[in-house]
Amino acid sequence: LENIRNIILIGAGNVATNLGYAFRDAGLNILQVYSRNPAAAEALATALNAAFTHRLTEVMEGADLYILAVADDAIAEVVSGLRASGKFMVHTSGSVPMEVFHHFTGNYGVIYPVQTFSKDRKLDFRTIPVCLEASSSRHLEILNRLVSLISGDVRTVPSEQRRLLHLAAVFACNFPNFMYATAGKIVHIARLDFDILKPLILETALKVQKIEPDKAQTGPALRGDRKVMKAHLQVLRDDPEIKDLYRRISRAIEAMEVSKS
Amino acid sequence: LENIRNIILIGAGNVATNLGYAFRDAGLNILQVYSRNPAAAEALATALNAAFTHRLTEVMEGADLYILAVADDAIAEVVSGLRASGKFMVHTSGSVPMEVFHHFTGNYGVIYPVQTFSKDRKLDFRTIPVCLEASSSRHLEILNRLVSLISGDVRTVPSEQRRLLHLAAVFACNFPNFMYATAGKIVHIARLDFDILKPLILETALKVQKIEPDKAQTGPALRGDRKVMKAHLQVLRDDPEIKDLYRRISRAIEAMEVSKS
Repeated sequence: LENIRNIILIGAGNVATNLGYAFRDAGLNILQVYSRNPAAAEALATALNAAFTHRLTEVMEGADLYILAVADDAIAEVVSGLRASGKFMVHTSGSVPMEVFHHFTGNYGVIYPVQTFSKDRKLDFRTIPVCLEASSSRHLEILNRLVSLISGDVRTVPSEQRRLLHLAAVFACNFPNFMYATAGKIVHIARLDFDILKPLILETALKVQKIEPDKAQTGPALRGDRKVMKAHLQVLRDDPEIKDLYRRISRAIEAMEVSKS
Repeated sequence: LENIRNIILIGAGNVATNLGYAFRDAGLNILQVYSRNPAAAEALATALNAAFTHRLTEVMEGADLYILAVADDAIAEVVSGLRASGKFMVHTSGSVPMEVFHHFTGNYGVIYPVQTFSKDRKLDFRTIPVCLEASSSRHLEILNRLVSLISGDVRTVPSEQRRLLHLAAVFACNFPNFMYATAGKIVHIARLDFDILKPLILETALKVQKIEPDKAQTGPALRGDRKVMKAHLQVLRDDPEIKDLYRRISRAIEAMEVSKS
């Protein structure tokens, strides 16, 4: 077993879909797709020219790699249902330790792409950082060769580092998106369209591609502009939760140690 | 006075620099740049082939438009120092009402670009939304013609709407950037480079160019994944301020009314 040729996807969600397309486009064979949701399994399998099932007991034997791209808290349960012994298995989770596989099989690992996926946005994997971990140096090497077919940024990142990285990803993705949603609520109150914020949102993300975010920080909190912040809190008076968030994030920004140029 | 030809820039910061380049590139004449910082005035004026001064009393008479792109709390002071009577003046602030000019001159307005600017990032104005307001419909029309030379998205937005929009911009730009900075701190603790988060940050911003952010929300808080959130809070135990923010933002995300697909 030196090169992976045949893959079975366990899961048919956002990550499974994007990984499935990427590996298929790289010339690998997706043998089968499993999902507990039969329609999801069929939809992805059809797109990938693969077999499908919604029963764990019907997952085929003999694939070179089983990729578990399911919800974090389903991983252990799914592994135990898979007659895993002897199979090479990886999961794709940021927060679940690799050792979740330890009791079930001898060869295992993790393929964690640092990205947010949607089923209907097929992303180019080449620039997506992918973090690997494996139960042996030999299996790490096998995963490395496999994932290098789809990404130009493959790194070895052990479970403990990966857990921190996943927390960072919440701050890099989930929390900014919530801020966008809150901004959207506010422009709607002003009877303006969310569109008006799109170039600003994009430029804010583009700017930190070039300069570190603590040097890119701007706004009333960084300037210590109490008058503007007070007026903003006044606008938010009917939404105590958001008002409280505004105050706390602003305070944290004021405390940032940056060159206020 | 039907078309603006000659502009004086009051201010040489991020907004003045970007507006100055955009108007210059559109064929307008930047007569003079004022900044209380002589080096900043000279640097921008030189780039724009304009005169410069750091004394308000030396600001020239006779320009078609005076654009005040200075800090919010400096606007009133600067106007009063400009012998403003008879001059057509605008400011570029999101949060200062247009009526700040009322006691000083009869013709005034606001040009508020909804964007974050840096001196060293010369942005393409064509897609930047620019909000206008003016003291008369005639002056609104003049500003509209002027700003349409640089932007394809010019809108009339009165002070009260603009104040809300500026608050939304804090949530769309300043707060996400703070989240990026916090994410950067966390990856550094993991001895990883901020680079690893860049594709994720960019895709998060690109996604909401296509779908509304409340439909783009992902992550442990949206899934109600208590186990992951508890582990994240454990990681953050030594930083009570960030831990508290994590908890509060997560709670607000859990309360979002979205289709959790």
